Amino acid sequence: MNKLLIVGTVAFDAIETPFGKTDKILGGAATFIGLSASHFNVKSAIVSVVGEDFPQEYLDLLTSKGIDISAIEIVKGGKTFFWAGKYHNDLNSRDTLVTELNVLADFQPKVPQNFKDAEVVMLGNLHPLVQTSVLDQMTTNPKLVVLDTMNFWMDCALPELLDVIKRVDVITINDEEARQLSGEYSLVKAAAKIHTMGPKYVVIKKGEHGALIFHGKEVFFAPALPLEEVFDPTGAGDTFAGGFSGYIAQSENVSFDNMKNAIIYGSNLASFCVEKFGTKRMETLEKDEVIARLKQFRALTQFDIALQ
Amino acid sequence: MNKLLIVGTVAFDAIETPFGKTDKILGGAATFIGLSASHFNVKSAIVSVVGEDFPQEYLDLLTSKGIDISAIEIVKGGKTFFWAGKYHNDLNSRDTLVTELNVLADFQPKVPQNFKDAEVVMLGNLHPLVQTSVLDQMTTNPKLVVLDTMNFWMDCALPELLDVIKRVDVITINDEEARQLSGEYSLVKAAAKIHTMGPKYVVIKKGEHGALIFHGKEVFFAPALPLEEVFDPTGAGDTFAGGFSGYIAQSENVSFDNMKNAIIYGSNLASFCVEKFGTKRMETLEKDEVIARLKQFRALTQFDIALQ
Repeated sequence: MNKLLIVGTVAFDAIETPFGKTDKILGGAATFIGLSASHFNVKSAIVSVVGEDFPQEYLDLLTSKGIDISAIEIVKGGKTFFWAGKYHNDLNSRDTLVTELNVLADFQPKVPQNFKDAEVVMLGNLHPLVQTSVLDQMTTNPKLVVLDTMNFWMDCALPELLDVIKRVDVITINDEEARQLSGEYSLVKAAAKIHTMGPKYVVIKKGEHGALIFHGKEVFFAPALPLEEVFDPTGAGDTFAGGFSGYIAQSENVSFDNMKNAIIYGSNLASFCVEKFGTKRMETLEKDEVIARLKQFRALTQFDIALQ
Repeated sequence: MNKLLIVGTVAFDAIETPFGKTDKILGGAATFIGLSASHFNVKSAIVSVVGEDFPQEYLDLLTSKGIDISAIEIVKGGKTFFWAGKYHNDLNSRDTLVTELNVLADFQPKVPQNFKDAEVVMLGNLHPLVQTSVLDQMTTNPKLVVLDTMNFWMDCALPELLDVIKRVDVITINDEEARQLSGEYSLVKAAAKIHTMGPKYVVIKKGEHGALIFHGKEVFFAPALPLEEVFDPTGAGDTFAGGFSGYIAQSENVSFDNMKNAIIYGSNLASFCVEKFGTKRMETLEKDEVIARLKQFRALTQFDIALQ
């Protein structure tokens, strides 16, 4: 079984949407990535940090999904990273109300010995130096390194971000971030420019408008599934990345054709994530539901025009 | 050969985009629909009105594409409908600078005798009473009636719009208009509500984010082709509608599966329309270019996941 190494936050979120609000609940990029990747036949581990306030039941949940949590450091007396946000009515934009870095401020990731040869590394959104440190600890070249990041690091740590971007195979960012990183408005041109920064594959996430993957002159598009209700978009991008990296790790096939399947899987899993608050939907998601929705993706996109 | 009856404006446009500006050039919904539908093996006619100021060369262009223009009324001493607009930097929004209705204000559409039995009727964006009048003149029930409209008529002539919507098979509107018409934010819910107003098929155009077609519980998505440059979006929606209705008219197959092909064709043709100002790109577009791009649409969307 292939190994998937996941690095990212394990955190508390407090979320407000037009449909309701939560107290502190389970959140964090690595949490969503891990839950999503647990749908594949891979051995996965999370490298992260939490405080002593982090409930054992949350750790138990990750373990119950087959995720190795031995590299989630628990800082004695420390407090877990906390984010609070409020979504606007269209759910496409949000205001950050609280960001408490807490134990994340001094996070030194330690890759477990038995994951230093992981076939796939999924670098969740974190400070680029943390992402770099993880790559430095690998003893075997991974088959695929996937990096997720956000505009915050483009604003505050661009040189460090560019350094780590050089070393990854796949970058996943949203459309606005792709424009910011490249200085190009056209996503085709943005992807071409980002290719020159290192990544052979550029995934551009457009939220409810789906996701594109570029590889040189090749491009593929995974739509978002049209849903009656989007309840809470938190974690959808991480769930997408977890589906993408989990599928690749399982199949151990890094061809562009296989990456098409991987972003369809990512979009599929993300479509469940948004149906309930936080991780709630992903906690109970069953394989037959995923397969049924893959059929919906097929019906949504497949056509048969005779090219006369 | 099947007949396609097109009703809509034939007009002057003056366009300003971040890439340049034009004087008065050929425009109008029926113009774009007709040029787009001319890529199919159909007999098409435009019902419209222009003023005496309308250049013969524009009429000759339409004729050269095989479009019957005998029902484009030329009003002696009248002036042609004129629209001027300026696009914002993202090309997704625009300001209308001038709208001169001119001869359009008193337009009484007259369906030519030999098109009163047209198999497909494409009602371009116009006052709903004009659209209704066209349907009233048909002597044979068309196999398919497609209606395009816009938010302006929802604001100013909603009862008349609802009356004509009741009588059509397919409605094409953009996402914001679907939300306005239905009062629902979710496009899935919006489409369900619009179904109850009459149309069995609801096409929701999302511009650079593609188009959805809903039929009861079924849904299909045609992406927009990611382009290096969008030069001028004017007429893209009409070109889409022309591709859709032209393809259906040619194939005479109103199954949902065939409509999937039709919106792919619509999206394909629209992707050319935006490459130059106004109708310029559509005037020279060749069949082999359309076929080559259909292959790009296939590469963009087709995948092959084993459903284990």
